[in-house]
Amino acid sequence: MRNIRIAGYGKYAPENTMEFHGECRYRANGSETQLDMAVKAARRALAIAKMQIEEIDCIVSASAVMMQPIPCNAALIHEQLAKGRNIPAMDINSTCTSFVTALDMMSYLIAAGRYRNVLIVSSDIASEGLNEAQQESYELFSDGAAAFVISRTENEKQGVMDSIIRTYSEGAHSTEIRGGGTLHSAMKYRTEDRADYCFDMKGKSILSLSAKKLPELFREFEEKSGISCSEVDIIVPHQASKALPFIMSRLGIPAEKYVDRVRQYGNMVSASIPYVLCALLEEGRIKEGDRVLLCGTAAGLTCNLLLLQL
Amino acid sequence: MRNIRIAGYGKYAPENTMEFHGECRYRANGSETQLDMAVKAARRALAIAKMQIEEIDCIVSASAVMMQPIPCNAALIHEQLAKGRNIPAMDINSTCTSFVTALDMMSYLIAAGRYRNVLIVSSDIASEGLNEAQQESYELFSDGAAAFVISRTENEKQGVMDSIIRTYSEGAHSTEIRGGGTLHSAMKYRTEDRADYCFDMKGKSILSLSAKKLPELFREFEEKSGISCSEVDIIVPHQASKALPFIMSRLGIPAEKYVDRVRQYGNMVSASIPYVLCALLEEGRIKEGDRVLLCGTAAGLTCNLLLLQL
Repeated sequence: MRNIRIAGYGKYAPENTMEFHGECRYRANGSETQLDMAVKAARRALAIAKMQIEEIDCIVSASAVMMQPIPCNAALIHEQLAKGRNIPAMDINSTCTSFVTALDMMSYLIAAGRYRNVLIVSSDIASEGLNEAQQESYELFSDGAAAFVISRTENEKQGVMDSIIRTYSEGAHSTEIRGGGTLHSAMKYRTEDRADYCFDMKGKSILSLSAKKLPELFREFEEKSGISCSEVDIIVPHQASKALPFIMSRLGIPAEKYVDRVRQYGNMVSASIPYVLCALLEEGRIKEGDRVLLCGTAAGLTCNLLLLQL
Repeated sequence: MRNIRIAGYGKYAPENTMEFHGECRYRANGSETQLDMAVKAARRALAIAKMQIEEIDCIVSASAVMMQPIPCNAALIHEQLAKGRNIPAMDINSTCTSFVTALDMMSYLIAAGRYRNVLIVSSDIASEGLNEAQQESYELFSDGAAAFVISRTENEKQGVMDSIIRTYSEGAHSTEIRGGGTLHSAMKYRTEDRADYCFDMKGKSILSLSAKKLPELFREFEEKSGISCSEVDIIVPHQASKALPFIMSRLGIPAEKYVDRVRQYGNMVSASIPYVLCALLEEGRIKEGDRVLLCGTAAGLTCNLLLLQL
């Protein structure tokens, strides 16, 4: 057990929404940036934690895409929230599961005494890279952000009970944005290659790989941790797609055991898991002592499981 | 002390070089990608470690810029080195000091028993983003990669003795590539805005901020760790620029105590520190028992210090 506690949480989604088949999707529509959303969610998390930025000793950005190629996202968030202070800022990235990976890693540093209060921020603005011609992804994604203040605790029952990360790179090109990095530079952009600079999701291929790998992963995690899914109070999965119930049924997880908010929120990329976790805390649906299993699939294909006792 | 050891190391720079004022700069010249260089350095590190990829249990990419916006660099490296295996892959980014930040973080996870052998790879291809019109940066940067296998050790004298990271975001825009992320999308690229998509360094401004902040940081580190710079065998600084001797003299560090290879290698961005560290190991200039202080400044402005006992 790595003893940490959630000291503050905040989420943010743009006011502007779109509707597809009766489902709500948040879209910034040019009025807000990925950075704006990150900062708003972070300020809410600080307010709930009743902390000033002076009490935070590390800022971690855990988003899928970058705001600028240089510097890292966390430095830009630092500039908005902590300019003039010298707390460290760095990015941790495993695409859609970046938040879970960051929480997983930082729990070691907090437990070891390196940091006392860490601000982890996930913010993604999918709408900047969606391709209208790819209906499945265009109608699925939302813009959003969520932030958490994670703190050291003396309560020995609180913290990360266990966690696991696996990357299956046979799925490395099933979810991607090919253009904009060094392999296909932004400066080589031509209108006719637009699709290469947009989000490209091979839905069926990821679904089939996830459906194959997740049951193995859950088994491995149950053996490793000695805790079965039935002993968990709630599962917060990445809101990957409408196929969530299919995947959960493949895992033998009953509907009352997991949270499906795809209709309400869509897939918010890296913000998806922390956004739902934040909503559950705001609604009082989860409380101290509960065992929450964060579970996600990400481009890579990377899968994360992290069991948190609140 | 977080007990880890260097089990393997490898570096790679493109064959093609350019010369400016008698100084050598490596430039891939379109024949190699950031990913190619990462993979070559990683294979060398595995060979020196006498390990197969099967013995590695985590791949961390610690580069400044991304190869593709999605997925993360580590997933693409995983695909080249570890396809069909399911070891985790994630990116850690603090721009030029990404390697030091990654080593710092992963030392906690290794010491805590999460991973036994971690492959950390830094690869950057500055030439993809340099602006010929900005002579100072154009003539300074090189392309290069370096990789390390970091392993758990039972030797209680080996490992990370102490480390510190500080971000001074008043320097957030002193070193940047503004375009290509979500704030200035690749899809909005116009030839007349090219400079916004290129590397932009305000050399004087960073130098003055570094010269002000680094002495404070060194003092803080000496107090925190209880180890003074005079007790360190060698300092491996980020090869930031020709001003390295100026900065070192400001810190009161004599020339024989630090490594300056700016003439030979240029500034290799995130690969800079691990490339020099690798060169020193290859040359037998550092050996088991030596105390090596890694020291870097990065866009952000982020400063890292990490004291390693080999």
